[in-house]
Amino acid sequence: MSVGSIKLVQVGERLLRDNDDAATRNRDRLARAGVLTVNLMAAPGAGKTSLIVRTIETVGDRARIGVIEGDIAGSIDAATVLRAGALDAVQINTGGNCHLEANMVDGALDDLDLAGMDILVIENVGNLVCPTHWARGEHLRLCLVGAAEGHDKPIKYPPMFAGSDVIVLTKVDLIDAVGFDRDIFYDAVRALNPRAPIFEVSSRTGAGFGEWSDWLLERLGRLRSA
Amino acid sequence: MSVGSIKLVQVGERLLRDNDDAATRNRDRLARAGVLTVNLMAAPGAGKTSLIVRTIETVGDRARIGVIEGDIAGSIDAATVLRAGALDAVQINTGGNCHLEANMVDGALDDLDLAGMDILVIENVGNLVCPTHWARGEHLRLCLVGAAEGHDKPIKYPPMFAGSDVIVLTKVDLIDAVGFDRDIFYDAVRALNPRAPIFEVSSRTGAGFGEWSDWLLERLGRLRSA
Repeated sequence: MSVGSIKLVQVGERLLRDNDDAATRNRDRLARAGVLTVNLMAAPGAGKTSLIVRTIETVGDRARIGVIEGDIAGSIDAATVLRAGALDAVQINTGGNCHLEANMVDGALDDLDLAGMDILVIENVGNLVCPTHWARGEHLRLCLVGAAEGHDKPIKYPPMFAGSDVIVLTKVDLIDAVGFDRDIFYDAVRALNPRAPIFEVSSRTGAGFGEWSDWLLERLGRLRSA
Repeated sequence: MSVGSIKLVQVGERLLRDNDDAATRNRDRLARAGVLTVNLMAAPGAGKTSLIVRTIETVGDRARIGVIEGDIAGSIDAATVLRAGALDAVQINTGGNCHLEANMVDGALDDLDLAGMDILVIENVGNLVCPTHWARGEHLRLCLVGAAEGHDKPIKYPPMFAGSDVIVLTKVDLIDAVGFDRDIFYDAVRALNPRAPIFEVSSRTGAGFGEWSDWLLERLGRLRSA
């Protein structure tokens, strides 16, 4: 196994370095286009697509939002966000891969109307582990977690929470039904990530989307005035 | 990238083959010991540990259950199942790896009281993608999905549902609150996997655990009479 392991590390490091280079090119291209780009990461079923839909509705005509949908299979999410009013959407099927990489995003950018776009959301494959290792070229890494997943998620998946720029707790309408303990959750997040803002929302009821959308628009303004 | 990709495939194939060999050794060892071994796979926060706890309580003195807990960090799950009455528990920290592999399980088996054990549950890292590629030596692959994750999970993560021997839908007490559509879920599962039994449970209320535990004990009897 030792030779195999050594080779794997070498190849893995080269792949990660190539990926980082491609991510930097994507990030620069998106900044030049004035498109604030958010990489949305969460467990399967956390409510990523629902967050995008409610955000599009809440932002309304204050910003035009495009979406890159990453899934190992299927295209129902791209159809959903277009119905909700997304400016544009591209579906990436990773063919079994557990995360999006920068070169997949690079290809999708060519198919998007960046000139007409203000915010691009990259919806990653549902996974709280693997997407942390691969940059895609985003300006903001967003970690979404649903109350139904339990207050212990930061304890179980620390790199995801430590490496995010903003954290959104969704499905807060279920907090009582599932016995979610806010104190444990906030303490665990703060131990890993003292600075990232934390928003509480419910895509079902719409709670919290005003504050969350205002923050996103403020970040868009900051990108454009930089 | 082409040279890197070719190398990665070669190394990857060898790692998977080595893993399959180790998994076969684990499976034979566990069968000889008469220990029915279940690999429990699910998204983060689906309720894997809660399922194990309720199963231990429901099975009672009809079978002694041991647990291998796989997490990228932490050991709170092993402590939880021991408090619930598990015969024995070993915590594996994968150090960032997104799934358990056969050689990790191999090491843990040496630390478990297999002679006194009837059922071993291997709780995999929370992930609906990566664990499908790596055998560990189990006799049953169990896919657990929580109603709060939505009825579209089989459509989004087909290999997990196609490759499982039994599927458990948990958190059924939330079905109405989250608008979970049973017809869509069952149709999608059946399109991928016509034969695997599907159980509906709630670890919160205890619903469905009688039927699920009886089936598990029946499979234990079948292993031992083989």
